[in-house]
Amino acid sequence: MDSCLFCRIVAGTIPATIVRETPRAIAFRDVDPKAPTHILIVPRDHIDSVDSPEAEDGALWADIIGLARGIARSLGLSDDGYRLVINHGRDGGQSVAHLHVHVLAGRRLGWPPG
Amino acid sequence: MDSCLFCRIVAGTIPATIVRETPRAIAFRDVDPKAPTHILIVPRDHIDSVDSPEAEDGALWADIIGLARGIARSLGLSDDGYRLVINHGRDGGQSVAHLHVHVLAGRRLGWPPG
Repeated sequence: MDSCLFCRIVAGTIPATIVRETPRAIAFRDVDPKAPTHILIVPRDHIDSVDSPEAEDGALWADIIGLARGIARSLGLSDDGYRLVINHGRDGGQSVAHLHVHVLAGRRLGWPPG
Repeated sequence: MDSCLFCRIVAGTIPATIVRETPRAIAFRDVDPKAPTHILIVPRDHIDSVDSPEAEDGALWADIIGLARGIARSLGLSDDGYRLVINHGRDGGQSVAHLHVHVLAGRRLGWPPG
């Protein structure tokens, strides 16, 4: 997937501020942050969307949730809280066709969520 | 967890509009919907939050993502899109201390997500 932005970040051919990584997924800062902390967690392997059949991968999700929890601990976010957001398609506002989980924290996030 | 609202919905002692269920999780309509489709997916077993150690359960997440995808297909949401939201703590806006995934669809969801 040479044309996929997040595949290129995973490959290291586009720079990103990596926060934490595992064998299955990496976390890096969103370049257009919408909260004091705004991090993206993406699988290393290309998966188009949470709506793709390949997204039903329990081991991958254990990794992703573990990353989110580890980031929350290392950045001191657990006590105040955070929000995870996963967008699919136009109505969801998915901007890159590579599954990614937004981690937002550092301010009181409003409701509704968009 | 007799005092937990979502445990009581799982147990059937508080009514809810169930959309779909699996051995590990159930999906029901949010009573205060923020989009034309607004469904909650919750594990049957009590887990306080996505930030809890018990949330690093890959089999549970395969079930939850499978439920979300199945709902998207059955309600015709996959083409237009949807958003999944998981809140932890005060800043995240978590309103019930039982892990739940919001599924929102049916309108163009805005950015930032809260």
